[in-house]
Amino acid sequence: MNLQCPLPKLDFDIITLGHGSGGLLMHELLNKTVLDIFKNDLLDQQHDGASFSLPGPLAFSTDSYVVSPISFPGGNIGDLAVNGTVNDLAMCGAQAKYLSLAFILEEGLKVDEFWDVLVSIKNAALKSGVQIVTGDTKVVERGKGDKIFINTSGIGQVHPSARIHHRYIEPGDAIILSGKLAAHGITIMSLREGLQFETDIETDSVNLNHTVNILLDGFGEGIKFLRDPTRGGLASTLNEISGAAKMGIDIDQNLLPLDEQVEGACEMLGLDPLYVANEGLFIAIVKKDIKDEVLQLLHTDPNGAHAAIIGYITDEHPGKVILKSRIGGKRVVSYLPGEQLPRIC
Amino acid sequence: MNLQCPLPKLDFDIITLGHGSGGLLMHELLNKTVLDIFKNDLLDQQHDGASFSLPGPLAFSTDSYVVSPISFPGGNIGDLAVNGTVNDLAMCGAQAKYLSLAFILEEGLKVDEFWDVLVSIKNAALKSGVQIVTGDTKVVERGKGDKIFINTSGIGQVHPSARIHHRYIEPGDAIILSGKLAAHGITIMSLREGLQFETDIETDSVNLNHTVNILLDGFGEGIKFLRDPTRGGLASTLNEISGAAKMGIDIDQNLLPLDEQVEGACEMLGLDPLYVANEGLFIAIVKKDIKDEVLQLLHTDPNGAHAAIIGYITDEHPGKVILKSRIGGKRVVSYLPGEQLPRIC
Repeated sequence: MNLQCPLPKLDFDIITLGHGSGGLLMHELLNKTVLDIFKNDLLDQQHDGASFSLPGPLAFSTDSYVVSPISFPGGNIGDLAVNGTVNDLAMCGAQAKYLSLAFILEEGLKVDEFWDVLVSIKNAALKSGVQIVTGDTKVVERGKGDKIFINTSGIGQVHPSARIHHRYIEPGDAIILSGKLAAHGITIMSLREGLQFETDIETDSVNLNHTVNILLDGFGEGIKFLRDPTRGGLASTLNEISGAAKMGIDIDQNLLPLDEQVEGACEMLGLDPLYVANEGLFIAIVKKDIKDEVLQLLHTDPNGAHAAIIGYITDEHPGKVILKSRIGGKRVVSYLPGEQLPRIC
Repeated sequence: MNLQCPLPKLDFDIITLGHGSGGLLMHELLNKTVLDIFKNDLLDQQHDGASFSLPGPLAFSTDSYVVSPISFPGGNIGDLAVNGTVNDLAMCGAQAKYLSLAFILEEGLKVDEFWDVLVSIKNAALKSGVQIVTGDTKVVERGKGDKIFINTSGIGQVHPSARIHHRYIEPGDAIILSGKLAAHGITIMSLREGLQFETDIETDSVNLNHTVNILLDGFGEGIKFLRDPTRGGLASTLNEISGAAKMGIDIDQNLLPLDEQVEGACEMLGLDPLYVANEGLFIAIVKKDIKDEVLQLLHTDPNGAHAAIIGYITDEHPGKVILKSRIGGKRVVSYLPGEQLPRIC
């Protein structure tokens, strides 16, 4: 259930350079929008930063979001920016607690577009249970930015049972993918190319912190590694893991969860779903003897309904990811070589 | 003493969209530049975030930096981005400990310009004693950004004796300004206008955390409020304080520390130094009976050599800042009304 917030009454309907001045206009904008919609005790301190006590161990993460267009089926840059950083913390085994929120706005941005983004941020923050506690707003001249860039940084509390590090990865560990590939990238790509698929494809952007928490509650150190395959797609992320752990990875194309509509769109656009960005998926590398239980538990969660074991860690071919294709051939899957689609997130 | 770092050997000399892809090019760029120059145990985790234990209370702050041009007398966007966030934390009474570092690069940026910024970040981080522990790099198309935008967010440990909040501010408290006004804004402004002053004016950007720490060690809760007058200048910051504390502020123009060259430049450019941005100054509101001791201690610190008591808190005219001019007249000093100079930080 999303909160509906009507646009507050303001004396202006576009953002001007004065809204980033540090002066009166900026205070008017912030007081009536950001500080009002995200109201909480820490943000209300209105100091240069928020102060609090938070028992550790902690995790700390940052991401800037430059997705274009800023709005797309299933979401906009606002919920993407909350979910992205909440998920980066979740991949460290942490529950996001506090977020910072920094905007770089382009002169001429319509205030109602800005407001839509703020409402999305608010709803995404409520869903993931995170508070916006400190922020910043800059405005750049027309043509020196692109509507809205957002940075969110986050602090989370690491689950007491989390032991997530590539050094724990061993041959035989199972590789679980939490859901269906490539929805986010295909959503942005088809929108940008002006393609009208007669489908319901939309971004998979969602907060994964509650799902990860359930796994850590249930299996603790049995969950050895977590990573969300965003930019660069599943292929690049598996290569990162394989390189860091100095292990080989074998995956099976027949096991990859892939929506038919998304697969069709990938074919039309000439894209390999292995390289397309995801925003609501994670890879879990788990101890082999608990893999079926992990999968079972994941299947009870809406974010894990389509989870599947897609492959295994091996001590053969360290640093390499090998895909067994649908017809049984094997090939090395490398990093995304150039750029597939800029500004996907 | 600044660290000198030669540009590493790379196969490219400009940033392309592929450097933000999440794939091979991005890994090559990051491994040879960011991850190498900032090398430390937390950053080396190369996870989606950094994990650590840090006893509280903590402070958390964020700022994006969009200054144009990115390089100016006395510094560049890199040291500005480190000092700015270190100082925001210092204003919360906290010693910055960990910073995140997120870049939005414009396609076509020269790698050697990027490298100069990284070296400045490294040197500023060393001086303030802060570590870069997590980061992000995005690339936007030519004409959708402006060379480099940086977000730094920071976590710091609040000084055990710090009791910094506007609710502690009382009539009679002294207002101390730690140094000379307006140097940063005038540096950027004169550079942008192509003015050649025959002067040595340069940015005052510096880390203030060590100076603040000395004050808190010495005077604890006698230091009631701290704030750095950046965008919007001294006038806007005093208005913020006056509004939050619901107190009046009286300042005396004769007491404002102002460099002659900066004052001359302000006159030439038609600017009021009260509204010009500073990057190495802070306002301290202190208990009246310790004001002279605080000033004495500040004068022993290079960042406080020109510190002065510029006025007092009063219960008359709550929410208003009143300036006694050089010739004895009084006038209300308001927030910066529009925008004086965009992209100053």
